[in-house]
Amino acid sequence: MRRFVLTVRCPDRVGVVAAVTGFIAAHGGWVVEAAQHGDLGTGQFFQRIEILADTLSFGPEDFGARFAEVAGAFDMDWRLSDTDVPKRVVILASTEGHCLADLLYRWRGGDLRCEIATVISNHPDLAPMVEWHGVPFRHVPVTGDTKDEAFARILSLVDQAEADAVVLARYMQILPPEVCDRFPGGIINIHHSFLPSFAGAKPYHQAFERGVKLIGATCHYVTPELDAGPIIEQDTIRIDHADSVEELLRIGRDIERSVLARGLRWHLEDRVLLNGNRTVVFA
Amino acid sequence: MRRFVLTVRCPDRVGVVAAVTGFIAAHGGWVVEAAQHGDLGTGQFFQRIEILADTLSFGPEDFGARFAEVAGAFDMDWRLSDTDVPKRVVILASTEGHCLADLLYRWRGGDLRCEIATVISNHPDLAPMVEWHGVPFRHVPVTGDTKDEAFARILSLVDQAEADAVVLARYMQILPPEVCDRFPGGIINIHHSFLPSFAGAKPYHQAFERGVKLIGATCHYVTPELDAGPIIEQDTIRIDHADSVEELLRIGRDIERSVLARGLRWHLEDRVLLNGNRTVVFA
Amino acid sequence: MRRFVLTVRCPDRVGVVAAVTGFIAAHGGWVVEAAQHGDLGTGQFFQRIEILADTLSFGPEDFGARFAEVAGAFDMDWRLSDTDVPKRVVILASTEGHCLADLLYRWRGGDLRCEIATVISNHPDLAPMVEWHGVPFRHVPVTGDTKDEAFARILSLVDQAEADAVVLARYMQILPPEVCDRFPGGIINIHHSFLPSFAGAKPYHQAFERGVKLIGATCHYVTPELDAGPIIEQDTIRIDHADSVEELLRIGRDIERSVLARGLRWHLEDRVLLNGNRTVVFA
Amino acid sequence: MRRFVLTVRCPDRVGVVAAVTGFIAAHGGWVVEAAQHGDLGTGQFFQRIEILADTLSFGPEDFGARFAEVAGAFDMDWRLSDTDVPKRVVILASTEGHCLADLLYRWRGGDLRCEIATVISNHPDLAPMVEWHGVPFRHVPVTGDTKDEAFARILSLVDQAEADAVVLARYMQILPPEVCDRFPGGIINIHHSFLPSFAGAKPYHQAFERGVKLIGATCHYVTPELDAGPIIEQDTIRIDHADSVEELLRIGRDIERSVLARGLRWHLEDRVLLNGNRTVVFA
Repeated sequence: MRRFVLTVRCPDRVGVVAAVTGFIAAHGGWVVEAAQHGDLGTGQFFQRIEILADTLSFGPEDFGARFAEVAGAFDMDWRLSDTDVPKRVVILASTEGHCLADLLYRWRGGDLRCEIATVISNHPDLAPMVEWHGVPFRHVPVTGDTKDEAFARILSLVDQAEADAVVLARYMQILPPEVCDRFPGGIINIHHSFLPSFAGAKPYHQAFERGVKLIGATCHYVTPELDAGPIIEQDTIRIDHADSVEELLRIGRDIERSVLARGLRWHLEDRVLLNGNRTVVFA
Repeated sequence: MRRFVLTVRCPDRVGVVAAVTGFIAAHGGWVVEAAQHGDLGTGQFFQRIEILADTLSFGPEDFGARFAEVAGAFDMDWRLSDTDVPKRVVILASTEGHCLADLLYRWRGGDLRCEIATVISNHPDLAPMVEWHGVPFRHVPVTGDTKDEAFARILSLVDQAEADAVVLARYMQILPPEVCDRFPGGIINIHHSFLPSFAGAKPYHQAFERGVKLIGATCHYVTPELDAGPIIEQDTIRIDHADSVEELLRIGRDIERSVLARGLRWHLEDRVLLNGNRTVVFA
Repeated sequence: MRRFVLTVRCPDRVGVVAAVTGFIAAHGGWVVEAAQHGDLGTGQFFQRIEILADTLSFGPEDFGARFAEVAGAFDMDWRLSDTDVPKRVVILASTEGHCLADLLYRWRGGDLRCEIATVISNHPDLAPMVEWHGVPFRHVPVTGDTKDEAFARILSLVDQAEADAVVLARYMQILPPEVCDRFPGGIINIHHSFLPSFAGAKPYHQAFERGVKLIGATCHYVTPELDAGPIIEQDTIRIDHADSVEELLRIGRDIERSVLARGLRWHLEDRVLLNGNRTVVFA
Repeated sequence: MRRFVLTVRCPDRVGVVAAVTGFIAAHGGWVVEAAQHGDLGTGQFFQRIEILADTLSFGPEDFGARFAEVAGAFDMDWRLSDTDVPKRVVILASTEGHCLADLLYRWRGGDLRCEIATVISNHPDLAPMVEWHGVPFRHVPVTGDTKDEAFARILSLVDQAEADAVVLARYMQILPPEVCDRFPGGIINIHHSFLPSFAGAKPYHQAFERGVKLIGATCHYVTPELDAGPIIEQDTIRIDHADSVEELLRIGRDIERSVLARGLRWHLEDRVLLNGNRTVVFA
């Protein structure tokens, strides 16, 4: 059933929830799901409300005009999503296909509600898998010399795709700062470690060297500072002394793909709100 | 800081949240935490709201009279708790002390906000530990012949204690139906298996025989039907073929005590609402 | 590197390990990995040893003749696998493709060392995915009237494939007892619950009704008694009151596929030994 | 039942296992449990064998002389423990008692087989709890001025206690390098983060600031470099955006105490072998 998802961020004060829910009730809106969070440290208030579209007495195009008074009174930063308008996603991958294959499989089965506009890779290896799913594949090689052109081309493909989200599914290339800054809170990466442990290159090798007893994966928004953006989701899995680096790689693939899939699903369902360099996740 | 916790259950319809939060806002109440759930299957709506006591323009004694109109209009079953009035708890135990010791330790450190009015046991073994914590201990032996008198005595001790909750911390005796029925949603048990697997006696032996690869524990409300009441919390832990029944007992103790502690804390904080034979847990 | 995997089961007594490892050492065998278990209840001893093939002074074809004396002296039930001879697997599926897709993906990437001889389904839906992976697909419809013929046909396909293992990847049909009995310890099923809870049909619906706080999946060997065979692997995942049956289905898919993949990998690597209706898993 | 636990470390080569198990079998030793690990990177071999004491034809005092030939031939670093000679433990704590209370409770119930010789603290707060358990308590204040004398006093108490292991149960003081160096592989610490994340002071505050979605604890051997010693055990637990630093502290206490208890039990049972700055744990 079609739903509108309203997300709100504003300074916390008495009456915010009453104002928003009163507005929705006054126009007949049936609230299917609601969650809120007041951050005592920053004084910010966060809310997410799912409304059955058919019960509201007006459509999404009129929401802004009608909600303006409430939003203004409480100085709200707000956004309305319509589940009938699937978000558009561009995926960047390299040669390792486990995260990409998982996203494509979930998307095909309806678990990830979005349109995968295109998959871009710096290698041609994953083209057959992508194309078998009926998704366009673009090969954009990245070399030391061509980096600027390559990312200009990628930016242009992302713009063309009118992407709401860019997903780095083990892309293995560091995005230039100007790309990161173009989509704040819009680029989602999966890092193959439990951040902040083992940021940067070869995290499984680092984990092996340190002798940790669990390995992990982190899904986070990309910012210009490497592996330091707001964390959306993490998980860990047990290993032991008998596991070689190769086995860590194999074991880690499972947790990478599930952490990325959860993080992306929450993002697509407007369940993730930025709170400085942290996130509020209404999972 | 003192808080009022309002829990509400009523038929779901447009405007419930707005009515409740509107009422609170109209009287200056600052909402610290709020959660809600609409059950599509039963059409019931559940809500829990924490309000900063000092911000509300009246005290808990006036809440009922003022809230009556809203409550009546929406046919609400509601309750208000005051964090300044700690709930009173009676714990029943037998000879195994791990769950009891854990609850006493958490209570002493302030993690479990309640008054432990008394501990009742059918064996004297745990008396020194209980009394060291400054809690009264009552020894009420239960034998086949004296069962009726014993439970009459226990009921009278519970009544005397004006208990809000009775906790079976590995009590190992089956409560008579009339005791169960006296406190619907008020008696909390920890069962040493992942229910509905291995209900009844010797669940670790049953688990060993079946060859399961995880064992678990279940915290649930007691009803006259053995181990079949509404589940509050569960957890599992990995075992393997090398673990004997004795090792399952040892490993299981850890998960029993943490599952019981979580379930009881949620109950004491009014986070658990009954929904037929299931629970809504606003954790 | 090529390895021989020796698995042994025999009555436990002094000197078993010394006899086996002494034999291997006497012929120059380098032990890469070894594990053992003595079951105090049954008096059975279980062992698994991986030997670097190149270090042994003879090949697998001569192993039996040379090992006969040791095996006889200790009344051993033993088996030698050669990693250069991949096991042959037949997968049975129905319409739900998440477990099958996962196995195919892992197999293609080299994580599951085996030959997938064929995939058999009672529905044609999954044919394109299977065939894209270069694996033969056989559609064998099963209806009430044709059940006997259908399973005769399946048995003949399994025989033709010279299968070492038959995997039920959410096959949704109950195998006739005579099929189960043909391959003791050779048919692997994934059941979508934490057994023994919720055996039989619609386990997620059962789980929802009971109000459990975790759902699970169980990988087990198939025996004529439904969902009662030896358990290889299990896992659980947290749910809450807000999750509908449909969401349990979605959440459960992730755990089903990972539990099945782990169980099958261990089976293919000769890490699972039967111990009555339980298993020893040298993971 | 009394057992001897033999742990061995030596360069890996053909015949090591056969030599050790052959020696044990030749003297009638019944192996209850055995585990081994060959580290391909370092070429080191690690083994742990539990032998039923009554089955061996000689006692622990003769073991060395008889085993010398085997040990010499393979250049073994070995050690024999006797379960009838419980290890002696000194615990250092500060004011936070959750880890200490947990260790004392497990020890009293027989889960931790050792003698707790004494508890030393820089504060008097935990004295009543320790003394109620019948364990001597020593108050050794540590201030900037008296640090040297304080640690000299602690060293002397540890020496007097003939301690096999020193446990830092949230001791909150940094040990001087000379103390660390006196007991390599003998001092066990619990750090309240998932190392290497958040080493040093106030790890829960660090975790809150970074916005991680799981917190953890690490049990490790102490070396002169802070929080960088060989890791014995780790675990993590889920948190979310609504958890304040205070709640992280509360949630973390549960995982700290269980991780420390597991690590210490493994140490006491000779299940932990050092492999450079990593550990082999035969759990």
